[in-house]
Amino acid sequence: MSETIGLINPGAMGASVGAAAAGTDHRVIWASSGRSDASRERADKAGLEDCVTLQRLIEQSDIILSICPPHAAEAVAGEIAAAGFSGTYLEGNAISPKRTRKIEQLILSSGGRFVDGGIIGGPAWRKESNTRLYLSGEQAIDIAACFSGSPLEAIVISNQIGAASALKMTFAAYTKGSTALLSAILAVAERSGVRAELERQWGDSFAEQTRNRVAANTAKAWRFAGEMREISATFTDAGIPGDFHEGAAEIFERLSQFKDRTGVPAIEEVLDALLDPSGSS
Amino acid sequence: MSETIGLINPGAMGASVGAAAAGTDHRVIWASSGRSDASRERADKAGLEDCVTLQRLIEQSDIILSICPPHAAEAVAGEIAAAGFSGTYLEGNAISPKRTRKIEQLILSSGGRFVDGGIIGGPAWRKESNTRLYLSGEQAIDIAACFSGSPLEAIVISNQIGAASALKMTFAAYTKGSTALLSAILAVAERSGVRAELERQWGDSFAEQTRNRVAANTAKAWRFAGEMREISATFTDAGIPGDFHEGAAEIFERLSQFKDRTGVPAIEEVLDALLDPSGSS
Repeated sequence: MSETIGLINPGAMGASVGAAAAGTDHRVIWASSGRSDASRERADKAGLEDCVTLQRLIEQSDIILSICPPHAAEAVAGEIAAAGFSGTYLEGNAISPKRTRKIEQLILSSGGRFVDGGIIGGPAWRKESNTRLYLSGEQAIDIAACFSGSPLEAIVISNQIGAASALKMTFAAYTKGSTALLSAILAVAERSGVRAELERQWGDSFAEQTRNRVAANTAKAWRFAGEMREISATFTDAGIPGDFHEGAAEIFERLSQFKDRTGVPAIEEVLDALLDPSGSS
Repeated sequence: MSETIGLINPGAMGASVGAAAAGTDHRVIWASSGRSDASRERADKAGLEDCVTLQRLIEQSDIILSICPPHAAEAVAGEIAAAGFSGTYLEGNAISPKRTRKIEQLILSSGGRFVDGGIIGGPAWRKESNTRLYLSGEQAIDIAACFSGSPLEAIVISNQIGAASALKMTFAAYTKGSTALLSAILAVAERSGVRAELERQWGDSFAEQTRNRVAANTAKAWRFAGEMREISATFTDAGIPGDFHEGAAEIFERLSQFKDRTGVPAIEEVLDALLDPSGSS
């Protein structure tokens, strides 16, 4: 049963998800209108078919996969719903369970079916990436079927909308949250003149690991602030303080200037950006 | 050169610090007035001499060591300064560099000398505890001399008041901050119905380690909230968001009910306390 799958959008993660589905004899289409050359290159590499406009993608797709930055998730779903999409919609983004349920209402009201998803891991080009797409909702199995035998492991965890989002949020809360915390700590130690002493107390191995982790993370920081705000909202909705990830969002915002940087910056430059976010030094 | 050292107070950490100094041929005194039976037992075990009143302790001491909960540090120093103490005062508590410098002013204005200190590690009964007393300030070497050859390793890191405090704050920011973060995450996952799935994604070893760490920490949580607020202030004073540790303070406050509990509680009970801080369930 080959279906047509519409992918929104072939970013770094989305392209690998599209390729995984395209490799299992589904037709995977994307809409190039208004997208960058980098997206086109990734879509070509992933074996996706260009249907040019979003309108055509909506008309032709049995299934739509939404894989985009968290701040765009609701707007994307709004457009799809407004066009009257009546197929199955995967909300695969790093957003709170509450926002996921809000998007579910949009899709249901247009006559579509809705599946909650959360991706854990990097782009899923190879099985060895160990990337997982967690799914929840009554139709979750239909989305899982799109990836059967592909490098992206699809796992259905619940028939409740919100479960896959909650898993994604709580997992990223530690991986990205602790990176933000360590970035902040190195900056405070630097400003206080005790970074060398702190690193000595940490021990060489943990200190080096931490510097590398903080510096390597800067390239992706620009798109983490939105995810941190979603995690903060997830915590607050669960009755737990959201402050940790409000702090993390601010840290990642101060590092967003490293977005188009080639190569990993020196730790000193990263700490300067954190300590002098206006860049006046 | 044997000196008289006044210890305020023989808590779990303070008693071990007093014992370390008493083991190096110094006379170490404490004031039992108004203190608990538990303090008296610890002081006896540590080999401290009871001078009964704070007034006598101040009169007889060449050096005073302040080792108390962070929220009490300023009040303790205020009493010592008001009594006209003119010896050397060690501020050894988990407080921000700014509060340390404020306390320095109190002590200097009464004619005393001031040393900044930060203890990293558990009670220092044996060398194997690897507990370190970091020191900074012009008279730091005089405090270090009190612990020469003792189980407490004294390390002078700077002649600047504030450096030892900053080191303590930035070190605890990760150890205690990440424990608070993991506690919060487990609670959110529990409330969202995905704790089993999160623990499966984490892997057995990290999941078990985390549950144990979160549960074992509850006995000490009651005295961590104040330290988290000092860390938050340290971050803010350095121009970095203090939100992480505001969240951590709230988490530890919700766990303060485990203070006098015998044995380690089950993780389910810990998560209940976090999710229902009023205890209405």
